[in-house]
Amino acid sequence: MRANGFRLELRAKEGLARSARIVTPHGEIETPTFMPVATFGAVRGISAQELAGAGAQILLSNTYHLHERPGEETIEALGGLHGFTGWSGPWLTDSGGFQVVSLADRAKVDEEGVTFTSPLDGCRRTLTPESAIQIQEAIGSDIAMVLDECIPIADKSPDSQARESRTDPGELERAMQRTLRWAERSQKARRRESQAVFGIVQGGACESLRRWSAEATAELDFDGYAHGGLGLGESREERRAAIEIANQSLPMDRPRYLMGLGRPIDLLDGVAAGVDLFDCVVPTRNGRHGLVFTSQGTLRLRNAGFERDDAPLDPDCDCPACRNHSRGYLRHLIRSGETLGARFTALHNLTYYLKLLTRARRAIETGAFAALHAEIEEIADRRI
Amino acid sequence: MRANGFRLELRAKEGLARSARIVTPHGEIETPTFMPVATFGAVRGISAQELAGAGAQILLSNTYHLHERPGEETIEALGGLHGFTGWSGPWLTDSGGFQVVSLADRAKVDEEGVTFTSPLDGCRRTLTPESAIQIQEAIGSDIAMVLDECIPIADKSPDSQARESRTDPGELERAMQRTLRWAERSQKARRRESQAVFGIVQGGACESLRRWSAEATAELDFDGYAHGGLGLGESREERRAAIEIANQSLPMDRPRYLMGLGRPIDLLDGVAAGVDLFDCVVPTRNGRHGLVFTSQGTLRLRNAGFERDDAPLDPDCDCPACRNHSRGYLRHLIRSGETLGARFTALHNLTYYLKLLTRARRAIETGAFAALHAEIEEIADRRI
Repeated sequence: MRANGFRLELRAKEGLARSARIVTPHGEIETPTFMPVATFGAVRGISAQELAGAGAQILLSNTYHLHERPGEETIEALGGLHGFTGWSGPWLTDSGGFQVVSLADRAKVDEEGVTFTSPLDGCRRTLTPESAIQIQEAIGSDIAMVLDECIPIADKSPDSQARESRTDPGELERAMQRTLRWAERSQKARRRESQAVFGIVQGGACESLRRWSAEATAELDFDGYAHGGLGLGESREERRAAIEIANQSLPMDRPRYLMGLGRPIDLLDGVAAGVDLFDCVVPTRNGRHGLVFTSQGTLRLRNAGFERDDAPLDPDCDCPACRNHSRGYLRHLIRSGETLGARFTALHNLTYYLKLLTRARRAIETGAFAALHAEIEEIADRRI
Repeated sequence: MRANGFRLELRAKEGLARSARIVTPHGEIETPTFMPVATFGAVRGISAQELAGAGAQILLSNTYHLHERPGEETIEALGGLHGFTGWSGPWLTDSGGFQVVSLADRAKVDEEGVTFTSPLDGCRRTLTPESAIQIQEAIGSDIAMVLDECIPIADKSPDSQARESRTDPGELERAMQRTLRWAERSQKARRRESQAVFGIVQGGACESLRRWSAEATAELDFDGYAHGGLGLGESREERRAAIEIANQSLPMDRPRYLMGLGRPIDLLDGVAAGVDLFDCVVPTRNGRHGLVFTSQGTLRLRNAGFERDDAPLDPDCDCPACRNHSRGYLRHLIRSGETLGARFTALHNLTYYLKLLTRARRAIETGAFAALHAEIEEIADRRI
């Protein structure tokens, strides 16, 4: 099944990088772009008007969290995600599988789905590929994600900081195969014609598994495709290869979404490999802790050196934080636990991410993307 | 000593209620008005632009908190409170005595001042009438408060909810007398000619002590006067009498400020008794907990009845929360611990308080204040 009125129009390419326009029932999205994370239907402390001002075109919310609170019936009764939240542009909802496994107590994954103890009321609940689609249809997002089984590529061993254990390839293949069977069940469960659904490519950092997963997922004919299970222990080169190999098997005319990554250089690496959509909690969460991304490098606002610094966070930024406040004041707010500080640093970081991908889009259109990629690589590890 | 360029111009009266204009070095203030509380130089989660939009004319900050963090030298280096915070309108700073006694561990009050253990670094520190003035001069507020000794009128006994113990009148007189001696020392410590300083009337709910305190404080010729130690256990009628009696001894051409009160009806009671300025954490703190003041009464947003309510918090309000969001959505944000919810409910409550005192000002000018007072009394205990 494919959604009505949902499509991707390619506009320009530079190498594998692409600029495109995604048409959804609630507006168009110029890509590549970043989707701010609004877990409970709100980005922490930031209004919909401010997000639009920062250049956001689409927001991401979490099915699992909204299902728990306030519940999809309440959202439906208040006009779906768009009417409920006041963000009337496009919404993407994560299926919730990743959150359940990483957050919930004693989650059990079997062929039926994910069973977990709700941290909210202590009850056992099951999320299946079918119920994940049903909940997302009730919530009314423009883009829904299939339920997938996401396992880390490498785990830091708790008894040693240095030792990493790589996940067994057989384990990765088993989870990838289950994700494929769940994807097929998800397609069959769809009823809402106006909602796009994206399949998810898994397979860890193993190139043959990624190719297999991409080919088989593409055969299920989704409205778009995501690269899942990355940013979980692989090297930067492994990630690039995993994305590029999968993209070779994915149709050119469908959006590609890299889930949950990352730092600015990770985004540009993704764009270089042909990704259109990104999301990550890094800009908002790190911002709350005083870690600020700027055109000159990364700034740790808690450092004593900024105590009496009257410069803006980033002289090249015109966000409300940079227009109106000094590093010294914002540092004071963060250190005092004042939520206004977290609001401003998160809004600045989001603005930086969104503007960076706007620059990437324009650069692709003029053949200047490789130079931008090199520029961001240059400042990726630079501390102000 | 009196401050240069600081004055009050009376415009209209209705009974004891008065409308006036206070001229400060950083702008004029139309009174009666409410001062939002920006303890650390920021109202919790709300920007200076939003405060101005809500009708705020002057903000209040706490000397004790700013002295601890970031310290007055840092604020001075970043342009004083106005340059540091980005709120370029008038600022009033509380002297910090009340905060020290209520927040700090093992505070000791003697003739010299208040000695306490800093919760920040565990060091012993002393705040004296002289140092409180010096810190406020460095911070650069438009209006400074003298250090006072503030003791509660009644304490709830910890072993019984019902039993209240009234503070001994001798104890109240002793604290009032010390506050007077400290006020005299404060006047002598002043150096900054552009900063107004307000004296504080004490005396609990005892009318003779209030009169005595007001007369003696007025003789010290401050730029304005505050009613301190109220909202701490007295009845509404006792409070009205305490304010009215003191006001009889205070010069008509100086601002009068009721410290730390309270609910909407408390504000209008104060206006009726001749008060010009108010501050309180109630609108912001209660807002964060989902208690919302509206033109129809008080609304407890956590109540289940609002779960699917698509009405705004207050149909008569045009604040950003009421313009853009439903009770159902804001309830969801508050229950989910999303700071955007606290930001919106606090901004709404501040807007309500500020608009209420604007209505009071206009009503005084047209002889309609008594009717407004009765209207607010009518809804004071009404639950939506």
